[in-house]
Amino acid sequence: MDSSQFRAAAHSAIDHIIGYYDTIESRRVLSDVEPGYLKKLLPDGPPELGEAWAEIQSDIESKIMPGLTHWQSPNFLAFFPANSSYPGILGELYSAAFTSANFNWLCSPAATELETIVLDWLCKLLSLPECFLSTSSTGGGGVIQGSASEAIVTVIVTARDRYLNYLAADAKTDGEREGIIDAHRHKLVALFSDQAHSSTQKGCLIAGVKHRSIKVPGSSTSNYSLTGPLLRQKIEELKSQGLEPFYLTVTLGTTATCAIDNFAEIAEVLKDYPQIWVHVDAAYAGAALICEEYQHLAVGFAAFDSFNMNMHKWLLTNFDCSCLFVKERKHLLNSLSITPSYLRNPHSDSGLVTDYRDWQIPLGRRFRALKIWFVMRTYGVSGLQAHIRNTISHGEHFAALIKSRPDLFKSITPPAFALTVFVVNTGSGGQMLEMQNKITKAVYERINEEGKVYITSTVLDGIYAIRVVGAGPKVRRETLERAFEVVVEAVVVVRDVGLGAVVDVGEVNQEQVRGV
Amino acid sequence: MDSSQFRAAAHSAIDHIIGYYDTIESRRVLSDVEPGYLKKLLPDGPPELGEAWAEIQSDIESKIMPGLTHWQSPNFLAFFPANSSYPGILGELYSAAFTSANFNWLCSPAATELETIVLDWLCKLLSLPECFLSTSSTGGGGVIQGSASEAIVTVIVTARDRYLNYLAADAKTDGEREGIIDAHRHKLVALFSDQAHSSTQKGCLIAGVKHRSIKVPGSSTSNYSLTGPLLRQKIEELKSQGLEPFYLTVTLGTTATCAIDNFAEIAEVLKDYPQIWVHVDAAYAGAALICEEYQHLAVGFAAFDSFNMNMHKWLLTNFDCSCLFVKERKHLLNSLSITPSYLRNPHSDSGLVTDYRDWQIPLGRRFRALKIWFVMRTYGVSGLQAHIRNTISHGEHFAALIKSRPDLFKSITPPAFALTVFVVNTGSGGQMLEMQNKITKAVYERINEEGKVYITSTVLDGIYAIRVVGAGPKVRRETLERAFEVVVEAVVVVRDVGLGAVVDVGEVNQEQVRGV
Repeated sequence: MDSSQFRAAAHSAIDHIIGYYDTIESRRVLSDVEPGYLKKLLPDGPPELGEAWAEIQSDIESKIMPGLTHWQSPNFLAFFPANSSYPGILGELYSAAFTSANFNWLCSPAATELETIVLDWLCKLLSLPECFLSTSSTGGGGVIQGSASEAIVTVIVTARDRYLNYLAADAKTDGEREGIIDAHRHKLVALFSDQAHSSTQKGCLIAGVKHRSIKVPGSSTSNYSLTGPLLRQKIEELKSQGLEPFYLTVTLGTTATCAIDNFAEIAEVLKDYPQIWVHVDAAYAGAALICEEYQHLAVGFAAFDSFNMNMHKWLLTNFDCSCLFVKERKHLLNSLSITPSYLRNPHSDSGLVTDYRDWQIPLGRRFRALKIWFVMRTYGVSGLQAHIRNTISHGEHFAALIKSRPDLFKSITPPAFALTVFVVNTGSGGQMLEMQNKITKAVYERINEEGKVYITSTVLDGIYAIRVVGAGPKVRRETLERAFEVVVEAVVVVRDVGLGAVVDVGEVNQEQVRGV
Repeated sequence: MDSSQFRAAAHSAIDHIIGYYDTIESRRVLSDVEPGYLKKLLPDGPPELGEAWAEIQSDIESKIMPGLTHWQSPNFLAFFPANSSYPGILGELYSAAFTSANFNWLCSPAATELETIVLDWLCKLLSLPECFLSTSSTGGGGVIQGSASEAIVTVIVTARDRYLNYLAADAKTDGEREGIIDAHRHKLVALFSDQAHSSTQKGCLIAGVKHRSIKVPGSSTSNYSLTGPLLRQKIEELKSQGLEPFYLTVTLGTTATCAIDNFAEIAEVLKDYPQIWVHVDAAYAGAALICEEYQHLAVGFAAFDSFNMNMHKWLLTNFDCSCLFVKERKHLLNSLSITPSYLRNPHSDSGLVTDYRDWQIPLGRRFRALKIWFVMRTYGVSGLQAHIRNTISHGEHFAALIKSRPDLFKSITPPAFALTVFVVNTGSGGQMLEMQNKITKAVYERINEEGKVYITSTVLDGIYAIRVVGAGPKVRRETLERAFEVVVEAVVVVRDVGLGAVVDVGEVNQEQVRGV
């Protein structure tokens, strides 16, 4: 493919993509292909001779599109969103054109420096405490990771090593040091509420440390938040078993219900356990911190060690773009750098040159800062804030519609960050919960089978509930009004069909509500 | 940015990128900006109101370009290449347009299914043994990882858990099982030759296991290969210390000299240690396996557990695209899946539905299979083979030029996979090596300061050497002839200036030769 063939191909691809975005609402949002559909459509191997772009592009429409679930459709109300935007796409385009490995500053100084700059911009925009800036007195800073799960395993590994190094700080020899670490490694335990995202659990598997969850209560007027007393009780219980808590994930916006942990209480308790690394997982809801009305939530974050939010979820920047901030970058380097300290670049220690490979698990990295830069400049602060406020307003409108039909629905938690969680009201009585779960699940399944909108479900204290969250840039007030009609119609149909048609709830897979 | 604004912006960006590629040779290949250059050029925060695309695009040229090291320039002869191509860029463009989280099959069935299909295509194209196909009787298959370093930490974690589960296989209770694992975890040790890429060492840090390297010899007629006897000796030595070897990285094409370990001998030794997981790191040179004349190298790989090669290095697919193949995918799932086995999808066990989140560290993933599909179809098998053979031929031509001037140069190892490693010939005598190192380093530094080409260096058994590898699609025979002239001129200048101007070698940072 030479330059002129690429020009024609790329212009055609751009027009194809615009056509896709302009008509996306007319496509069935959730793909209904059967497993293995694509293998039947493609040959057993690559062609011997090259093919023309026109052949490839026509296969995208005929063979790939039917197997896509359209996350950019306004009818995508499932999981959490994965926002795309035109400036974000341009960022990926330039990033691909500038392909380089970027494992250290010299690989492409602009890639490193722009990342530091736009993450400082983001830090201020989110009103995070000053300690998370690259210029902070604590030596903090931000780094783009692929996903929140990568950010979390990175801080778990770092926290593990900080803790072990603390234990071995007084060792006189390498052998003594290794002995202390070997004797303690298997006692380390990471904590998280049972509403925290599963990535903490997976991060612990990777880091080879134990983990324990803390059960947190919820109700229709409160939410499922981790509190100080619950945390203290668990820490003491584990210590009495000879285990050593070294890490805690707290959450701003849990996956199931967008709950917010009680940060002030947690910070107070942890004054008694200063060796525990606290990470704030704000993967989805953290985006709301760009609006003044949410910034009180971040006031106490200086008490914690790290924070991440995904611009690729709700802030108009294409996946992947998870932004991780740490208060002291030296801990990342101590854990993840394989450059002996005496060989580290003096520019690095001064903060002028950052080798981001030492802030993450992989070595190479794409030039992802470009898309953040393009998005922030194209929308401006006011445009980004308008997007967050619009989608929250649409979500609250949907929650109000649910509330307006108490004959049909019950809210499970207060609406939060554009998310509404509710069940079908099936009245009261002896078998009430069992019946409610069966009907709610039947309604949920009917909606997704029908395919006008795509939603996900969750299970909270044995209650099967429906989640609706429309936070993509194409979501409008009317989109959610129509979604409400779809939900009401599904309830009516399930009631008409009668319980005989309702399948057993059976094993409920919590996996289905997990977002990125 | 609405559709029509995006059309104009994207068409302009495409033209800009074509102009960049068409004239890339005229830019200074290695950026010479000072650390901190970009901060001086950009504001302290994002704009309050959005800006037009034209303003952003003009800043790319004026502010970003000076800070780029141009990896796609034919004058980039450093590290290993990170090949870009026009069809690869189109793959990234569509992937961004289809932004979705892709953490399970239903998220976008096409993303999962195309990945399985094109990795089976690649498996056959590389002539890997049948056990690495998704359809194999061993339950194998391939997965796209971001980089070789991610692939390697993934298999180290998997190997660690397979080994611990093997030790605890007879435990009667969870408590007994945990006790066995706790008692052995700190005894586990991973092995690699001292020429293996540093990502094995980093992977061990992340997985929390010990690691030991095996020193391997080299000469100007052999290369730095790990052999069976060296491996057996190290295993026995570690076992006698009470350690438990559980993992080994072998390499097809080491970073410093493109050495190939002795796979047949290693496989023979490991018959006596069947619990050791062997991973073949073919990150760069693995691409050559698409040509028949290299396929004998892969004949014995069925004896090993996993293999990875990076299409983003030498096979025309934009970073990131590291392809990892395993013989038994169940070990990945046992280690990395947090879905209890009784909840796993029956489609998954049958191999019809793959949830690739359980084959990797992150949860979410981009639709990277598109770019492989576009690249393979656009070039065809013959086009890909021609690219590999052309670049190897150019590399051998460069090596012949080096050999044609024994008065100036000495080869350190035979040329391999387009890479030539050499030193400046400074004659013989008492201080020979010290002088040779000083002169060679001075020549190396002069070449990069001059900036006509960008090369890297390495240190082998105390010998400071220059590496030249031109394996990008824009590299021509004349490019390497010109590079040879640059090297010769640098030697002449350094000789003219005399030793007074030659700086001390000082601390040599092995880091500088590490590729992705």
